[in-house]
Amino acid sequence: MDNSPIVQHANAEALQSQENTINISMGYYSQSKNIGTSFDARMMQRCLELARKALGCTAPNPMVGAVIVKDGKIVGEGYHPKAGEPHAEVFALREAGENACGATAYVSLEPCNHYGRTPPCSSALIKAGVAKVVVGMVDPNPLVAGGGIAKLRSGGIEVIVGVEEAACRKLNEGFIHRILHRRPLGILKYAMTLDGKIATNTGHSAWITNQEARSVVYQTRVACDAVVIGGNTVRKDNPYLTSHNEFARNPLRVVMSRSLDLPAEAHLWQTEVAPTLVLTSKGANPDFQASLRRRGVEVIELDLLTPDKAMAYFYERGFCNVLWECGGTLAASAIKENAVQKVLAFIAPKIIGGSAAPTPVGDLGFTTMTEALALERVEMRLVGTDCLIEGYLPLNI
Amino acid sequence: MDNSPIVQHANAEALQSQENTINISMGYYSQSKNIGTSFDARMMQRCLELARKALGCTAPNPMVGAVIVKDGKIVGEGYHPKAGEPHAEVFALREAGENACGATAYVSLEPCNHYGRTPPCSSALIKAGVAKVVVGMVDPNPLVAGGGIAKLRSGGIEVIVGVEEAACRKLNEGFIHRILHRRPLGILKYAMTLDGKIATNTGHSAWITNQEARSVVYQTRVACDAVVIGGNTVRKDNPYLTSHNEFARNPLRVVMSRSLDLPAEAHLWQTEVAPTLVLTSKGANPDFQASLRRRGVEVIELDLLTPDKAMAYFYERGFCNVLWECGGTLAASAIKENAVQKVLAFIAPKIIGGSAAPTPVGDLGFTTMTEALALERVEMRLVGTDCLIEGYLPLNI
Repeated sequence: MDNSPIVQHANAEALQSQENTINISMGYYSQSKNIGTSFDARMMQRCLELARKALGCTAPNPMVGAVIVKDGKIVGEGYHPKAGEPHAEVFALREAGENACGATAYVSLEPCNHYGRTPPCSSALIKAGVAKVVVGMVDPNPLVAGGGIAKLRSGGIEVIVGVEEAACRKLNEGFIHRILHRRPLGILKYAMTLDGKIATNTGHSAWITNQEARSVVYQTRVACDAVVIGGNTVRKDNPYLTSHNEFARNPLRVVMSRSLDLPAEAHLWQTEVAPTLVLTSKGANPDFQASLRRRGVEVIELDLLTPDKAMAYFYERGFCNVLWECGGTLAASAIKENAVQKVLAFIAPKIIGGSAAPTPVGDLGFTTMTEALALERVEMRLVGTDCLIEGYLPLNI
Repeated sequence: MDNSPIVQHANAEALQSQENTINISMGYYSQSKNIGTSFDARMMQRCLELARKALGCTAPNPMVGAVIVKDGKIVGEGYHPKAGEPHAEVFALREAGENACGATAYVSLEPCNHYGRTPPCSSALIKAGVAKVVVGMVDPNPLVAGGGIAKLRSGGIEVIVGVEEAACRKLNEGFIHRILHRRPLGILKYAMTLDGKIATNTGHSAWITNQEARSVVYQTRVACDAVVIGGNTVRKDNPYLTSHNEFARNPLRVVMSRSLDLPAEAHLWQTEVAPTLVLTSKGANPDFQASLRRRGVEVIELDLLTPDKAMAYFYERGFCNVLWECGGTLAASAIKENAVQKVLAFIAPKIIGGSAAPTPVGDLGFTTMTEALALERVEMRLVGTDCLIEGYLPLNI
């Protein structure tokens, strides 16, 4: 019954060899112009690889990688490890030493041009005598964008901008969103069955997806500054919300609960594993607050406990990426309040049934299908035997 | 945040060129042994192409194509157009004429060995003097399987069996299921949003998927003998259930309704477009039955109106493929009664929300996620901008 062409991977091994994941863009991405040579692209990819070494560690700063190349060889590398530490260019120039003179510097983000905790990188590059700078993307802050590049050019340095730009932007999408919208990027993650359920009629949900998909979630947590759930998820699932890797960092685990009607014992209260924050409303259950604090759980009272107020708080705290792993009711509020920009939907090819079983997103107030929020820049990917569909909500819904 | 390898199709045109669909098997398929040469495979694919010309027309018979090859050239082709008409081999031998002598015959299904409405094809091939027969798959009926092949071999003909077998089996999966289980193959099709809804809170559902996905549904209907919905879908959606193509055949459109509480006017009652059958229970609303019959709608009373009884009736009627396009309640009953073997889930990358919005499958009586029905032989495919996940329920759940 099916005449359509098939690209078929013959067996599980074929998938294994690609880490069990295959991505397909649905063609929404604007085609990136090919700027620079293929060597430039390779060097920029190396910058991104270096930048990613600090995955999840740099907020409120971006992840940045830099490479110094002389006579076709890498003579210096660096990345920005965390806020307060030197920028990527500084480490790369330091490693290159005198070789930087006449060399080409690759850097995934426009070198800074201001005195912050460190002197401007544009000056450092000029001082080191580099001949050429290849930049991945300009600074996303419209007030300073281009300043570093102008400074380099005025210093007689040849500058190319936009090599592997799409990849550079993607790596720092949380940082970019933060700069432009004064809020962290909100990512809604859920796992559902092929018939749209996130749990059974009785609320049981372990497990919907396979180990591979759960590993992708763990890796996503490494990259996020906070993971947020509501009280109901604590009560029903008693999750860990960690990266499940003793060598990897953990995000701040956040519970939003107005009532503080939460269990006395929960994995999240074990703060020796990872930090936990409970966001609640003014004056809620002081005794329970005290008992949480005794266990090392941070408790913050907000005037109004809403997803937007939570995101405003996370912004003040310097976060770039916030992962919403909550149930449908909180997810719907978060979407309505623009606290979610990106959706990661894991779909397990199984049928659980249940006319009252919970689904990923509660009431948004829509009555006709034409009102549905169409995701943009959608990607579909296999993760083990599960499907991951990823996309972005329309801005300012 | 995402380091996994990406196979990215740069733009919409790249997808267009593949009819906007890309298939990925999840690696469940058993690897087919490569039987025969690549030329044999090409000829068998031609047989399948010919067989498909009778898509949806052959029940209770299978679709079969045949090709006669002499000196590397096709000298005769044929396919089985419908029950009561000659088999594929007869047409191909007729076209080949004397060229059949010493030739190789390719046929997608084992040639028959019995006198039915036509004489056995095994005898016809022997009589025509073919030197070799290449068979796609053996007869699925265990009582007659291999008989035609044995007859050919005993007639001194070289026989190769199993060339492109997986594709041959897939084309006739409904027929095979019918033969082995004495029921048509039941296919559950639904379209849902990325948050698992098949309609809004208020029941509005037009449209969830894009035109490309709807076209795939129309083509699927061409291949099916019947399309089944419940009374609620008539009331809510007032669907056409046709192939939306004046040159293509339409399936029998079936409404299951115990109460016959159905609208007086509905697209389905326009039987000049396509035939409609209403299955109901004994003695339900005789006046409404009479009014339906006056409009050319067939009405059948079953003792017990259940999905299994409906499928038993469809089996008696000679059907091979039955498409369930019903809502969640009837879908759950159909799954529970083994009236569904295959699932076609179209997923549109959009969020509608709604905690009371209907989902694709109602109550199956499961309370823990471990009870979920894991689909087998899963394939994921892009259809335009929507995702199609296809798979088979475990047998005899």
